Amino acid sequence: MNVANSDTKQAIFDMDKENNFPDWYTEICRVAELADVRYGVKGFTPFLPWSYMSMDLMFNILEEVLRRKDHLPMLFPTVIPESNLTREADHVEGFTPQVFWIEEIGSGEKLEERLALRPTSETAIYPLYSLWVRSWRDLPLKRYQRCSVFRSEVKSTRPFLRGREFLWIESHNVYSTHEEAIAQVMEDLETSKEVCTDNFGLPVMVFRRTQWDKFPGGLNTYAADTLMPDGKVIQLPSTHDLGDNFAKAFNITYLNKDNETVPAWQTCYGPAISRIYGAMISVHGDNKGLRLPFKVSPYQVVIVPIFKGKNIETVLEYCKGIEKVLKKAGIRVHLDDTDTTPGWKYNYWEMKGVPIRVEAGPRDIKKNSAVLFRRDTLKRETIDLKDLKKRVAALGKEIDQNLLKMAEAKFEGLIVDTERLGEVDDALDHGKIARVPFCSIEMDAYSCAEEIEKNTRGEIRGTRIDIDEKPEGVCVVCGKVAKEVVYIARSY
Amino acid sequence: MNVANSDTKQAIFDMDKENNFPDWYTEICRVAELADVRYGVKGFTPFLPWSYMSMDLMFNILEEVLRRKDHLPMLFPTVIPESNLTREADHVEGFTPQVFWIEEIGSGEKLEERLALRPTSETAIYPLYSLWVRSWRDLPLKRYQRCSVFRSEVKSTRPFLRGREFLWIESHNVYSTHEEAIAQVMEDLETSKEVCTDNFGLPVMVFRRTQWDKFPGGLNTYAADTLMPDGKVIQLPSTHDLGDNFAKAFNITYLNKDNETVPAWQTCYGPAISRIYGAMISVHGDNKGLRLPFKVSPYQVVIVPIFKGKNIETVLEYCKGIEKVLKKAGIRVHLDDTDTTPGWKYNYWEMKGVPIRVEAGPRDIKKNSAVLFRRDTLKRETIDLKDLKKRVAALGKEIDQNLLKMAEAKFEGLIVDTERLGEVDDALDHGKIARVPFCSIEMDAYSCAEEIEKNTRGEIRGTRIDIDEKPEGVCVVCGKVAKEVVYIARSY
Repeated sequence: MNVANSDTKQAIFDMDKENNFPDWYTEICRVAELADVRYGVKGFTPFLPWSYMSMDLMFNILEEVLRRKDHLPMLFPTVIPESNLTREADHVEGFTPQVFWIEEIGSGEKLEERLALRPTSETAIYPLYSLWVRSWRDLPLKRYQRCSVFRSEVKSTRPFLRGREFLWIESHNVYSTHEEAIAQVMEDLETSKEVCTDNFGLPVMVFRRTQWDKFPGGLNTYAADTLMPDGKVIQLPSTHDLGDNFAKAFNITYLNKDNETVPAWQTCYGPAISRIYGAMISVHGDNKGLRLPFKVSPYQVVIVPIFKGKNIETVLEYCKGIEKVLKKAGIRVHLDDTDTTPGWKYNYWEMKGVPIRVEAGPRDIKKNSAVLFRRDTLKRETIDLKDLKKRVAALGKEIDQNLLKMAEAKFEGLIVDTERLGEVDDALDHGKIARVPFCSIEMDAYSCAEEIEKNTRGEIRGTRIDIDEKPEGVCVVCGKVAKEVVYIARSY
Repeated sequence: MNVANSDTKQAIFDMDKENNFPDWYTEICRVAELADVRYGVKGFTPFLPWSYMSMDLMFNILEEVLRRKDHLPMLFPTVIPESNLTREADHVEGFTPQVFWIEEIGSGEKLEERLALRPTSETAIYPLYSLWVRSWRDLPLKRYQRCSVFRSEVKSTRPFLRGREFLWIESHNVYSTHEEAIAQVMEDLETSKEVCTDNFGLPVMVFRRTQWDKFPGGLNTYAADTLMPDGKVIQLPSTHDLGDNFAKAFNITYLNKDNETVPAWQTCYGPAISRIYGAMISVHGDNKGLRLPFKVSPYQVVIVPIFKGKNIETVLEYCKGIEKVLKKAGIRVHLDDTDTTPGWKYNYWEMKGVPIRVEAGPRDIKKNSAVLFRRDTLKRETIDLKDLKKRVAALGKEIDQNLLKMAEAKFEGLIVDTERLGEVDDALDHGKIARVPFCSIEMDAYSCAEEIEKNTRGEIRGTRIDIDEKPEGVCVVCGKVAKEVVYIARSY
């Protein structure tokens, strides 16, 4: 099978990731054939097989967790009538500047009403929720969809990390009480951790966002952030307590057990898989290229046959046997039988980030053995063929644990306690995250936040909800008594 | 888990499918909660969990076959610049009338160039194929994507069968020679049969379409048709021999082994899963509702506990044991422990088309047995619990074979040999398909085809390529010597 295209075919990759992350990222997207930026429409990037196959596996993992927690999949249209979009005032104000509009069909037929490409689907879905939800017996209603969304980002776009079309799952839930809705938000945060940390190896900090940085139309936004190699943070899944705002705007009411018609409570949750993929390859990659987690690598194992002169047939036969054993064990395995040298193949699949390589040649045949190479540590071991299946499975787990451990190590010592604006700026310049006492995360503290952004180019990420913290002292900006501990970081 | 919404909750379904198929279809879409037509934008219909979960399984089956045949997945943007769309003359003429256009972003920002929502992705993908393909070593290039496509259908729309947004896979392949491209077309037709017939139970006839009914810009179109309950045929997957037309328009050339730069040969293949789903439920359903194939039913088995007074706990325990055994065996199983009566549950899950029901109550506990009910024949059998796993798996296969057998029986005696236009019209009025001698399927026979359409409201579906047929006699319209045997049918 042909996996590389001539115009980018290259085996050796060598870039200094820590010191030149932006170039590293651009180059690995090109050389590993993850995305092709030559499509010609700003912010729209084709996703190539090597990235798409991983994202597909990532979607599967996330969907498995959602279904286990009783969310069912569905799919709403890509287009939303303009009149839907304008029903919740804050929401329309937040999203309208980013909307792509359809006004015309074919050769000049004008639509009666403009259609938006969905920037998010609350206003598509909730009018039907209003029809579906009648009584307390219909609740909870837990649904999600996997789809593309479209936002005309003004910031500079990058493949996966920020695009005008990106891939996500959006989950939309309706409850009888606010308490249940908040419990759903907490469940979503657990899901984020289970998926991003346990499966993709990304450590996260979990925040309640400030009131000026929440989902337009919602009560509160909670989100998991992870750390990029350049010291900036990036938002992974976010989940929103919508209160009964949308229920009131879209008339989602139900008959409770006392026979009263009351508004329902809602939440929504939006893990952007393409963005999480971008963060994942950034966090785990090294100077030689990608290092993909075993769980989401398109090929978990690549087999490289070592030919010596006339042994080609025998070695290939032996390698096919190995392939068969692994395939039968449910491992995603690829036998590279192309006519390049073993050395070329080593470099190529290391650059592509395949977690485990099996090398097998005449010497291995004699001993009924094979060499296993692991991409994370670049170490080799020789194993007896009878242990193959078991060892590959165990090694896969070890590799994923090690990738997470290395990522967690980067988090350590990262947070600096600061009490003055100058210190914050200094910490951020050194790729750190500043923890500061702050007056409030309600709207009345917005001017303090503006002051911080102006002076440090850092953003307040909110207050931690995954740990308990009590504020001491005074707000780093206004000097009032601090009611919160907030984290300030530069961000994507 | 809550699977039904109050506003459509209904257990008993009873509609005469054979004599009133249009109403049957509309009603089953509503009552089984497959699609909600109240979205408010013509031709755009939300797909609800019960249909989406089946379509997702159908996509998985198709993708498994494509990947086995060395096609790799990718994903191109939803939007296509207008200048791409106009590069192949026939193609732009064929698709432009159906295109949704984006001209504006946000609050009045005009785009420099209009963007089309993809009606199909040749013009999105091929400019990059032109960059990727350099040498014979890059070929074949076999890629596909799973996505939504958008066409402003003028005909009346129906959920799944004809929508302005539908779900499909499109596969785009590049070869060194025309022979290889044609071999790919034949492989696609095999894939169609394997997927639609062997997995979804839909018998097909395979046609080469006429020159006036082919893919705009291609050389030849081949397609599989199946038969709907109202006697009309419907196109399932179609595959196109693009020749080197698009290669020339998009400059997809390669350096061959003689070091000459020559145009490549291309094919594309487009199974519309949402449409195939619509055909599948139409073909297999009966007056009591859906009958879903075991392979693609969201739940393959539903368990209904039979409570008698104070036995609730014991029976539920017993049913949970059954659920556990089946789940462990990889069966998609659902235990209905809601507080409705067993009778209500029987009707509800029969209407939803679940292939196998397990009924278990106090009497079964005593004998360590359970009752299996199959939806296709409505028959019951009692089995020993130790045979459960094996019997369910076997029954699943039997049900799928039986659904196909019943569908094939409808095909029998369907084709009528006719030699005069009046006979064609008569056959079509009786829900049959007419087989006729015809002058030609090249463009010069177009006026004969128009004559047929005017007189019979039937369409020429093309010449069969899955069987060998020699024409005899003269063209049913113009009286010239017949060069072809064609099939005429009314169609979706």
